[in-house]
Amino acid sequence: MTPMKSLPRLVAELVGTAFLLAAVVGSGIMAERLSDGNVGLALLANAIATGATLTALILTFGPVSGAHFNPAVTLADASQGGLVWSDVPGYLVAQVIGAFAGVALAHLMFDLRLFSASLHVRTGGSQWLSEGVATFGLLAVIWGCSRRRSEAVPFAVGAYIVGAYWFTASTSFANPAVTLARGWTDTFAGIRPGDVGGFVVAQLLGAAAATALFRWLVPSLPATAVDVVVPRNDVDVKAERESLRSRQMSRSSREDQ
Amino acid sequence: MTPMKSLPRLVAELVGTAFLLAAVVGSGIMAERLSDGNVGLALLANAIATGATLTALILTFGPVSGAHFNPAVTLADASQGGLVWSDVPGYLVAQVIGAFAGVALAHLMFDLRLFSASLHVRTGGSQWLSEGVATFGLLAVIWGCSRRRSEAVPFAVGAYIVGAYWFTASTSFANPAVTLARGWTDTFAGIRPGDVGGFVVAQLLGAAAATALFRWLVPSLPATAVDVVVPRNDVDVKAERESLRSRQMSRSSREDQ
Amino acid sequence: MTPMKSLPRLVAELVGTAFLLAAVVGSGIMAERLSDGNVGLALLANAIATGATLTALILTFGPVSGAHFNPAVTLADASQGGLVWSDVPGYLVAQVIGAFAGVALAHLMFDLRLFSASLHVRTGGSQWLSEGVATFGLLAVIWGCSRRRSEAVPFAVGAYIVGAYWFTASTSFANPAVTLARGWTDTFAGIRPGDVGGFVVAQLLGAAAATALFRWLVPSLPATAVDVVVPRNDVDVKAERESLRSRQMSRSSREDQ
Amino acid sequence: MTPMKSLPRLVAELVGTAFLLAAVVGSGIMAERLSDGNVGLALLANAIATGATLTALILTFGPVSGAHFNPAVTLADASQGGLVWSDVPGYLVAQVIGAFAGVALAHLMFDLRLFSASLHVRTGGSQWLSEGVATFGLLAVIWGCSRRRSEAVPFAVGAYIVGAYWFTASTSFANPAVTLARGWTDTFAGIRPGDVGGFVVAQLLGAAAATALFRWLVPSLPATAVDVVVPRNDVDVKAERESLRSRQMSRSSREDQ
Repeated sequence: MTPMKSLPRLVAELVGTAFLLAAVVGSGIMAERLSDGNVGLALLANAIATGATLTALILTFGPVSGAHFNPAVTLADASQGGLVWSDVPGYLVAQVIGAFAGVALAHLMFDLRLFSASLHVRTGGSQWLSEGVATFGLLAVIWGCSRRRSEAVPFAVGAYIVGAYWFTASTSFANPAVTLARGWTDTFAGIRPGDVGGFVVAQLLGAAAATALFRWLVPSLPATAVDVVVPRNDVDVKAERESLRSRQMSRSSREDQ
Repeated sequence: MTPMKSLPRLVAELVGTAFLLAAVVGSGIMAERLSDGNVGLALLANAIATGATLTALILTFGPVSGAHFNPAVTLADASQGGLVWSDVPGYLVAQVIGAFAGVALAHLMFDLRLFSASLHVRTGGSQWLSEGVATFGLLAVIWGCSRRRSEAVPFAVGAYIVGAYWFTASTSFANPAVTLARGWTDTFAGIRPGDVGGFVVAQLLGAAAATALFRWLVPSLPATAVDVVVPRNDVDVKAERESLRSRQMSRSSREDQ
Repeated sequence: MTPMKSLPRLVAELVGTAFLLAAVVGSGIMAERLSDGNVGLALLANAIATGATLTALILTFGPVSGAHFNPAVTLADASQGGLVWSDVPGYLVAQVIGAFAGVALAHLMFDLRLFSASLHVRTGGSQWLSEGVATFGLLAVIWGCSRRRSEAVPFAVGAYIVGAYWFTASTSFANPAVTLARGWTDTFAGIRPGDVGGFVVAQLLGAAAATALFRWLVPSLPATAVDVVVPRNDVDVKAERESLRSRQMSRSSREDQ
Repeated sequence: MTPMKSLPRLVAELVGTAFLLAAVVGSGIMAERLSDGNVGLALLANAIATGATLTALILTFGPVSGAHFNPAVTLADASQGGLVWSDVPGYLVAQVIGAFAGVALAHLMFDLRLFSASLHVRTGGSQWLSEGVATFGLLAVIWGCSRRRSEAVPFAVGAYIVGAYWFTASTSFANPAVTLARGWTDTFAGIRPGDVGGFVVAQLLGAAAATALFRWLVPSLPATAVDVVVPRNDVDVKAERESLRSRQMSRSSREDQ
């Protein structure tokens, strides 16, 4: 992938991740302001707004970049050959910049300072378990749908996130870039910056476990990794797929020997 | 089906049912904690979280195991030739183990003991009627959609469960494995262990009635039972379907005589 | 259509309409009981439960009977040649019986008397206008989608009803059989029996207006009326369509003369 | 396009926009009346009702007019060659008339005066930024989906609006015709007429920015603009597309020289 050809993909990841964070943080601020102190109502609005926006964003940016918006997804995809490793650093940088831009955008829309460190304590074993479970489930949904029902991925991921906000004790961050940026919003969706590390480790472990499980459940997984999340339609997909097939064939012929 | 080939299917049923229970129980705990005693708000969050998660899980695990997660579905499918009877015990065991694992997982995420018997009384004629109606409707949705709109099953089942949580007096357990495991959570979603039996009997009667109705409404039902819930794509499906067709043909030629 | 061949269709209309009423009335009872007097929360639960269940029911029974569940839809379909007029009385009777059965079922599930006349006053010009608008919109959605996006009809109708519960002053009954039966439930969803007549007249006028509008917007409407709501797959559809085409051709050849 | 052939399209835009406004304003009135002063609950009902209705309306009127209902969408579409410029004035007039008709209809259903100027102040930098972001996102969703997933546009747009009601400080008007008409409802959804101008400017800037971004992200955008929002099936589409192709070819051959 030449730099020129990859630029639209990186811009898509950046803009999409920015909108995702604006949705998470902005709907959290609005929900907290309007809900008269009823946290259940605020979380319901926050969950529905996040899931609905995420579905729309995956449908929108999927054909350009795959709509990862999430370092855990990018790393899992690369581990299965869906993304060449040399593309990974660009994706991760675009996601992190986009995430911080989204937080700043939400703060601007709601008349708050660009960034402010969160005081919201989220740490301890049950929180880490929650993040591991949340990210395991997210990757399971992606791998499980991308093979046979790739057109359903945007809806499955959005629906999963609506549910996972409620069934995990941590409200399912499930995304290292999102977690990092949410450290700098002292609002409903925030997390104390010092607690970010534990979340990220748990998320990466959960993502790795789900990828391993589906690799075993569905041996043909790598052949579909190119299209993970949403099929891209840039001209390179066909070439990538063929290059992937030939790499896999040469690997299995080596294994046969 | 050799043991090796069935293992991924059983693991899919186990993991999927565990996530379903984690969603039901976990979102119930979160909802009760955050809703300031407003049970209507708690049930709304619980219903939306459960329905959304279930849709994502069926999309995710359907291609591997059919995404039953429910002994009533497995038995109904087997009764129509969709699953060979020798596979049934494995499915049921995986579902029950998965259900208890899911309850334990939810409890761990929310810092509760692994299991605790529920004190929530749910018994009596109107409760049993509710479970019969709920499971009748669930199987009707599955049989009605699987024939012509199988790609819509995950969405139809998720939507039905959101509705059925509200229109039945029992909040629609509609699943014997789920009911059994919910006996051991003393939280929003619990049921007193002594009341489990009545629910399970009502559920199985409802499932049998819906299966009989659709067998009559749609005489071609058995030919599509192989794909019930979501088409599986393991290599055996083609063979199973042909074996099913030949069994049906020999049966009807016997009936002709 | 011989009586035997029509029986499954009539049973599908009856059972489907019964479930629709059970959903409308049952979720209304549950919502009112749990919502601590907050009518907004109760209506939100009632609307979401009704829309979700309706989507599932149309997907389930559509392939058998077309999933009308609604005399206004049946009459509009017949007026465009989608249903032969001799089938109409059976459909209407099945819908009305199903509607009353659904109310009774909801009452049984919630430990209430089988039927009790509602005391809820719903009358006057703005209520009638609301019902006319609601039913106009419902038929517009059906006619607009059935031609090119028939697979989307169940989702479009369910989504429309969720919205229309909120944007009409009458909470969108939009269905004469539903209105009639809701006269006999003295719960959240009820309507005083004496007010039913005004609602039904407004609903039929709204349905007729939408049908006329779409007949003009989309001149090819009658050719698709056979499949209105959801394509049926009984063996008669092909025959009906050809008979319809030949009737239309003879009509237009008469007009040409 | 001759006047006769365009009339159904203009009527579809008018009726669709009227229903959209009736949904926005009507559900706002109902939500405010029923929610006991809890603005969070009112906005949740308003957002869900609006998003669900919008999805149904796009599915319904898309095949006739493209289901713009929004001057920003019409102008963006025309800028990419999807609509000939001579059709634009008719679309804009139909949208504005429809929007005011929808406000009046909602007021009639809820027993209010036909029009009443809103007193709701919505002005200032963060409000304008919110509208710019909201409309940028709306156009991004439309352009991003229309190329490869046009059948998903109605669902993506509805989901996006549910989210954007919550994550922008202005509750996402994102539509100049809607904004103009909401100036004349002194209810939940209103905006002071004097504040309309700032909103409209921000909306048009956001729409232009998203169109420019996607023009660069997806160089093949103009070739798909004909079908923006939802493919129309009037007989002219094929002719328009060919005329568009030949205009583009002659333009690029000029550029080549």
